[in-house]
Amino acid sequence: MRKLAAEAFGTFWLVFGGCGSAVLAATFPDLGIAFAGVALAFGLTVLTMAYTVGGISGGHFNPAVSLGLAVSGRFPARDLLPYWGAQVLGGLLGAAILYAIASGRADFTAGGFASNGYGANSPGGYGLGSAFLIEFVLTAAFLVIILGSTSTAASASFAPIAIGLGLTLIHLVSIPVTNTSVNPARSLAVAVLAQNGALGQLWLFWVAPLLGGVVGALIWRYVLSPGETIRNVGSDDTRAP
Amino acid sequence: MRKLAAEAFGTFWLVFGGCGSAVLAATFPDLGIAFAGVALAFGLTVLTMAYTVGGISGGHFNPAVSLGLAVSGRFPARDLLPYWGAQVLGGLLGAAILYAIASGRADFTAGGFASNGYGANSPGGYGLGSAFLIEFVLTAAFLVIILGSTSTAASASFAPIAIGLGLTLIHLVSIPVTNTSVNPARSLAVAVLAQNGALGQLWLFWVAPLLGGVVGALIWRYVLSPGETIRNVGSDDTRAP
Amino acid sequence: MRKLAAEAFGTFWLVFGGCGSAVLAATFPDLGIAFAGVALAFGLTVLTMAYTVGGISGGHFNPAVSLGLAVSGRFPARDLLPYWGAQVLGGLLGAAILYAIASGRADFTAGGFASNGYGANSPGGYGLGSAFLIEFVLTAAFLVIILGSTSTAASASFAPIAIGLGLTLIHLVSIPVTNTSVNPARSLAVAVLAQNGALGQLWLFWVAPLLGGVVGALIWRYVLSPGETIRNVGSDDTRAP
Amino acid sequence: MRKLAAEAFGTFWLVFGGCGSAVLAATFPDLGIAFAGVALAFGLTVLTMAYTVGGISGGHFNPAVSLGLAVSGRFPARDLLPYWGAQVLGGLLGAAILYAIASGRADFTAGGFASNGYGANSPGGYGLGSAFLIEFVLTAAFLVIILGSTSTAASASFAPIAIGLGLTLIHLVSIPVTNTSVNPARSLAVAVLAQNGALGQLWLFWVAPLLGGVVGALIWRYVLSPGETIRNVGSDDTRAP
Repeated sequence: MRKLAAEAFGTFWLVFGGCGSAVLAATFPDLGIAFAGVALAFGLTVLTMAYTVGGISGGHFNPAVSLGLAVSGRFPARDLLPYWGAQVLGGLLGAAILYAIASGRADFTAGGFASNGYGANSPGGYGLGSAFLIEFVLTAAFLVIILGSTSTAASASFAPIAIGLGLTLIHLVSIPVTNTSVNPARSLAVAVLAQNGALGQLWLFWVAPLLGGVVGALIWRYVLSPGETIRNVGSDDTRAP
Repeated sequence: MRKLAAEAFGTFWLVFGGCGSAVLAATFPDLGIAFAGVALAFGLTVLTMAYTVGGISGGHFNPAVSLGLAVSGRFPARDLLPYWGAQVLGGLLGAAILYAIASGRADFTAGGFASNGYGANSPGGYGLGSAFLIEFVLTAAFLVIILGSTSTAASASFAPIAIGLGLTLIHLVSIPVTNTSVNPARSLAVAVLAQNGALGQLWLFWVAPLLGGVVGALIWRYVLSPGETIRNVGSDDTRAP
Repeated sequence: MRKLAAEAFGTFWLVFGGCGSAVLAATFPDLGIAFAGVALAFGLTVLTMAYTVGGISGGHFNPAVSLGLAVSGRFPARDLLPYWGAQVLGGLLGAAILYAIASGRADFTAGGFASNGYGANSPGGYGLGSAFLIEFVLTAAFLVIILGSTSTAASASFAPIAIGLGLTLIHLVSIPVTNTSVNPARSLAVAVLAQNGALGQLWLFWVAPLLGGVVGALIWRYVLSPGETIRNVGSDDTRAP
Repeated sequence: MRKLAAEAFGTFWLVFGGCGSAVLAATFPDLGIAFAGVALAFGLTVLTMAYTVGGISGGHFNPAVSLGLAVSGRFPARDLLPYWGAQVLGGLLGAAILYAIASGRADFTAGGFASNGYGANSPGGYGLGSAFLIEFVLTAAFLVIILGSTSTAASASFAPIAIGLGLTLIHLVSIPVTNTSVNPARSLAVAVLAQNGALGQLWLFWVAPLLGGVVGALIWRYVLSPGETIRNVGSDDTRAP
């Protein structure tokens, strides 16, 4: 239960902080934080929570990360569904509180509400193919970063910096294409509140990141680190990603 | 006395650096640092001072942090009022020096002077409910970050990075709503110099952060880390921050 | 082979992430990440990959870095050409995938495609002399940073931060002059797809960085660290990056 | 000699990178890095060089830092003038190379050339009193950060992060007032090339930072850390920075 509480809290923070920066601060006239500020915010949600509860749950906060870690042999498959459930619930809580705050303004409309999309819902008007490809590639690389930066004892304490700022980098590249998901729980959480048809495109932001997570894990395990002993870490000593 | 000097100096730096960036640099024509620059500045005041005097006083620089740490059992309650006094005095000193510098310009007017507010004093026009909720939620999460990132010996030396950049994240989200407090001493320090009626709204920026600090400490102690041995750290070995 | 896979993957990431941020996100209307966001993105590609695969291949991702390390005596000269090959292939893969994504937009034109250039191809219209000098000086300093930050055991685990953020700094200075190379593989990868004549200027972005890499290595070895024992590290224990 | 070479190289980098970002990239139309980018660049020059040559020379790169460290008892007074000389020479070299690059553009004029100033030469039109006060206060706090973050063995390896990002913070606050010095060698280096009368105001950017450096050292030694054993570190084991 403590692990699931940590995953729920961390995913709450990822959605509240990351999507919150997008909804509340990105487009503020003249002084707004724009895409670069949102990219920094998303990365810092993971950096902070990985240092905060990473030692409790492993610090996934993302169904695609949990799946990739399971494929890599570092996370027990039997914990996958409970983790996914906690991540989705935490994300929904973050989106709900954000909605309550954002609506406390006279001219509020939900609009896209920081949801992910392609075609008409892509910030830059990119099509389905571009959206799928970039979500797939970036999630695969994200898993490689997670698995690589936590693989050696020497610098494992730096992993939250590499992983958090890696997520910032991912957003710096891809916000114009899909508004950046690489995280199905984050996409689901705000899609249910958006008023631009985001729910109808939600499938892509589950399929592409999950597929990317699997492929990233396989790249690490069979190409970059074939000699690595598979540590099937149990529930009690999972390390922060 | 050395501890109190450290808390006063750190809070001086938080107000001078954070509010200073807002007053002097945020709205400079074309080249100003905008909300994202102010968010970075606030975070770096805490990152730098936590590495500088965190080993002396614990590096709170914030009455809500001191209260939350006391509730969590990591800070002796008898030191709470002296710490609050030092924090308020340090913050006032920072605001006074900032005022002296800012007024050395022909067209200076104090205006809001980086004060916090809601309704007419909210940068984005958010109402009292939104302001209270976001200050409460963000301070609670801030305490969870502080308690979590300092809870394990393995990565305690990274805590100032997590906590400082966590404060940057908090500002990236909430400057448009309340100009971001999560710190009663910071709010008080500039409210006394502002000329927009900030003093009349100051109560919220004590009540919401202090309440959030208590709830964050309880979430850590009873939900996320129920098995943690309560270390009632004495005055001499309080760890940063 | 595992080392070469790591170099190819890291250089893929450098080109896809760094050039991707430039092509997709830099000039987005009103909310784009501009030069500072691109500078951050390039630095984070190296920071993340140095923590991810630095322990496998040394984390060069750059022919000029491999050459400089060879000159400094820390990298076996016999591995130089294989590393260059892997870096070029990885970079080309990154550029190709980026092209596939970027073209999924109705009004796409390749244009400069984040290529490097001087004269008419310099973002700020700087001539050949300025371009050569800044690429030479910055690559030399980059090698000094790499050799210095990895030279003492005490802080070697911080080297990816110093090196990655050093690359961010290099971009903050020089994007207006040459669009910033300091990396022949990065320049080659996008020059073949650009439609502004970048291939005709590509020679400069091999000659100047390679020359700078050699001079930087000599400055470290003979001026800054003359007493350092030359560790001719073998293939199996090369340290990141 | 090796120490002096390290100080010269580090100060070269500080001026070339920091002032270079201001001269070349700050005001680029639409995509320029603005004040926040320049603030990041200055901080990263120190972060990178402290990790690179901090172990050789202590990593001062600044006459006010050397003076403050001497007052604090951590740096031998007999090395003060040689260090100042190396810092000034390195800074001048950085400014000269920057000038050569910047002038390779058809419409180049030196103008302020990133020099420091007050009154008519203050970016925001701040007077002499504000300029003196902010340079004094920020240099004093900078010395407190340097002395504090290097004072305990536990986190000394993080000191370059605290000190470098502390310099970023200092610039985030004060560029509009004086263009930010806190470093007499940096001010001298570009004042000799500026064409706005900066040399006539140079005295302030020696007097205020040096005075601030002394006061900051005294605050640390007698207020914040009265019980600290004064380690009169010799030439061979000076710690970064």
